[in-house]
Amino acid sequence: MKLKAVILNCTLKKSPRKSNTEALIDKAVDEYNKLGVETEVIRVIDYNIPFGINSDEGDGDQWPEINAKIKSANILIIGSPIWFGVRGSVTQMALERLSGGYDEADETNGQYPLYNKVGGVIVTGNEDGAHNVSANTLFNLTHLGATIAPNSDSYWVGEAGPGPSYIEMGQDHLYTNRTVLYLVHNSVYMAKLLADNPIPTNLKELDEQAKDISKDTKKHIRE
Amino acid sequence: MKLKAVILNCTLKKSPRKSNTEALIDKAVDEYNKLGVETEVIRVIDYNIPFGINSDEGDGDQWPEINAKIKSANILIIGSPIWFGVRGSVTQMALERLSGGYDEADETNGQYPLYNKVGGVIVTGNEDGAHNVSANTLFNLTHLGATIAPNSDSYWVGEAGPGPSYIEMGQDHLYTNRTVLYLVHNSVYMAKLLADNPIPTNLKELDEQAKDISKDTKKHIRE
Amino acid sequence: MKLKAVILNCTLKKSPRKSNTEALIDKAVDEYNKLGVETEVIRVIDYNIPFGINSDEGDGDQWPEINAKIKSANILIIGSPIWFGVRGSVTQMALERLSGGYDEADETNGQYPLYNKVGGVIVTGNEDGAHNVSANTLFNLTHLGATIAPNSDSYWVGEAGPGPSYIEMGQDHLYTNRTVLYLVHNSVYMAKLLADNPIPTNLKELDEQAKDISKDTKKHIRE
Amino acid sequence: MKLKAVILNCTLKKSPRKSNTEALIDKAVDEYNKLGVETEVIRVIDYNIPFGINSDEGDGDQWPEINAKIKSANILIIGSPIWFGVRGSVTQMALERLSGGYDEADETNGQYPLYNKVGGVIVTGNEDGAHNVSANTLFNLTHLGATIAPNSDSYWVGEAGPGPSYIEMGQDHLYTNRTVLYLVHNSVYMAKLLADNPIPTNLKELDEQAKDISKDTKKHIRE
Repeated sequence: MKLKAVILNCTLKKSPRKSNTEALIDKAVDEYNKLGVETEVIRVIDYNIPFGINSDEGDGDQWPEINAKIKSANILIIGSPIWFGVRGSVTQMALERLSGGYDEADETNGQYPLYNKVGGVIVTGNEDGAHNVSANTLFNLTHLGATIAPNSDSYWVGEAGPGPSYIEMGQDHLYTNRTVLYLVHNSVYMAKLLADNPIPTNLKELDEQAKDISKDTKKHIRE
Repeated sequence: MKLKAVILNCTLKKSPRKSNTEALIDKAVDEYNKLGVETEVIRVIDYNIPFGINSDEGDGDQWPEINAKIKSANILIIGSPIWFGVRGSVTQMALERLSGGYDEADETNGQYPLYNKVGGVIVTGNEDGAHNVSANTLFNLTHLGATIAPNSDSYWVGEAGPGPSYIEMGQDHLYTNRTVLYLVHNSVYMAKLLADNPIPTNLKELDEQAKDISKDTKKHIRE
Repeated sequence: MKLKAVILNCTLKKSPRKSNTEALIDKAVDEYNKLGVETEVIRVIDYNIPFGINSDEGDGDQWPEINAKIKSANILIIGSPIWFGVRGSVTQMALERLSGGYDEADETNGQYPLYNKVGGVIVTGNEDGAHNVSANTLFNLTHLGATIAPNSDSYWVGEAGPGPSYIEMGQDHLYTNRTVLYLVHNSVYMAKLLADNPIPTNLKELDEQAKDISKDTKKHIRE
Repeated sequence: MKLKAVILNCTLKKSPRKSNTEALIDKAVDEYNKLGVETEVIRVIDYNIPFGINSDEGDGDQWPEINAKIKSANILIIGSPIWFGVRGSVTQMALERLSGGYDEADETNGQYPLYNKVGGVIVTGNEDGAHNVSANTLFNLTHLGATIAPNSDSYWVGEAGPGPSYIEMGQDHLYTNRTVLYLVHNSVYMAKLLADNPIPTNLKELDEQAKDISKDTKKHIRE
């Protein structure tokens, strides 16, 4: 079985404008390919994606196309720029749309759509904010079912204050070059492990077990 | 092999004062025990732990005792209260001390001390801040080598503004009861998987590979 | 002189769909009106606002209309929903567009466009994340020149986990009702104070002073 | 009247160890002195400060000494290192102790202890996290009553990944040198303005007004 990685590039810039985030994504793609993993990079802003929190907002919404690709992948990497210290609006929009997956849990075991997939992040910005973007994004992916392998973020930012961007700086930063390799190797190992040993947890049964011990009935609804 | 979970309770209150975080930790402990996992809950503030970023700060420092227990465990859960919307100071102090582990990477493969361990969080607060605490804490654990299984946070907070705490509210909240079960079951499955199939990634080799492609020599230092 | 408050409602829902954030904004509007302050609520998603970081992205971009209203106001309130623990994508998009104002600093004193204006936030969500949204948003506004009076956030969230929204809960929460009054009264006082006593700081002169003490010339660019 | 600025240095290192945060604080102190403002820098870790959320935790607690100094000041600056992408544990501990001030609101108007004071932050770290530290810290100060003037944060961080610290890099970064001047000048102007024109908002009256419009009585408690 060939593994597949889908990488969302959530830059604010439409093709063919240069994207710093894509420059770092390219390094991950090269390494995934070396390891025999198929990759697909999707620049979200090139698609017609309305704001919303459902998997299909209708009216020419192209999120379902992207969502289908994510579902067919073993690895999902969110590539995000930093704006104002936090993740950019396109990243946030993509995650809001991804959260529609809560309604698409498996009928038998209640698992959310990213169960048995592996998540990761690639972040670039002129300055500061990579930890914030990475932490929130990886956490959101775990809520939707993703597993996070060790060292699953790779980022570049410059020194304090506005300054040159990743491409302008030559895309040649040792820490970033190291961490992108860690991200790729660990995500591939974990994806294989989960493909061979899918998580058996039956969330629906655990929901019943939780109800049995909860007198409070106000919150007897499922996420 | 019997799996072991170490749970740090990072309440600000010394024993024997009541800890809301401990009340939620107890639910996790019960479920871990049902699944045959040995547990140890450590209330960090009962120990003599100086501020610092080394594994041993000397002078009666008891962090090495705690650190040894963490190293012997398969699962590490950080239990944290929320103060002012973010994780409490004892949690932050424990993570700073844990970061001393960067200097204790495996000599052969460079893996950080939490590789092949599974991380999770348990969070309580009167109001708001659980996503922030969970996201940052799980992310920090991945930097030190932990793997994060899906749905690996369980939290309780009340409505907006100051109000009753978890114990005062009866510890009976369905969402919290559900998520603590998800956390326990998924972390146990992942811990077994990693015990049987340890991550083979050789970070030292990847470091060499990264150096070869980096002309920049300013940053040729290891974390 | 009559003071004016502009309130951006950054809900993901187009008119005329019900917005929980608007329900809380309405309480602020009532109180502003009682105090003789003119208000204008702008539902950002009803406008054609492309992603970007410039004040005018061309091609039918309606941000310049909104931006002109903001410039004419004394008080700017960002109303934001919480999604996935952080501010929604429309809020983030609006702030990215607002950051175009860095290029519109005053020619004489270098002050950014929100100097002498007062900022505030109104936040609603089903669960958790209000501190995160408020902190980041108020901070971003200070970078663009806004002053933040005490207690300048008002929010509502429910207990842990998914659950009823602000409107469904009856919009009747004492803490939220209190804080919206604090926000309005303090922002009005501060706006009057700044209208009568504009901040005289000459950032351009301070830039020169900074250059004189900085040997490093790599970063001799202005934000 | 001579204005006074109290600056808490929340480094993890006891005197006389070198503190990067202090190196940047020194620049602020110089400029405050030039403007005729009295300054006092307090290295929190040199004091005996137990964990807690009360203004006096007893048993030799030295927080009351620090608290008295803060109360006598017009400007409060929090100097914080970044650890693991967020504010250090000593900063968090100091803010938790400061939150004891909620119980010391003015008997007549209910104002919290930092009303009519101005807040700011100074942040240093090897890498990434300054926006996160600044945003949360300034926000927390507004909850306790502080006003935040424009551009009230000054920080330095290096490029992505571990690397040299502020002192090692020569303390010579133009952006940081500029922003520390903005911080000092704006905070001094705002402090004078508030000293001459104290905020008249009567929170207790607003509390009564809020109660009158709230049918919900569960939350009829004051923060």
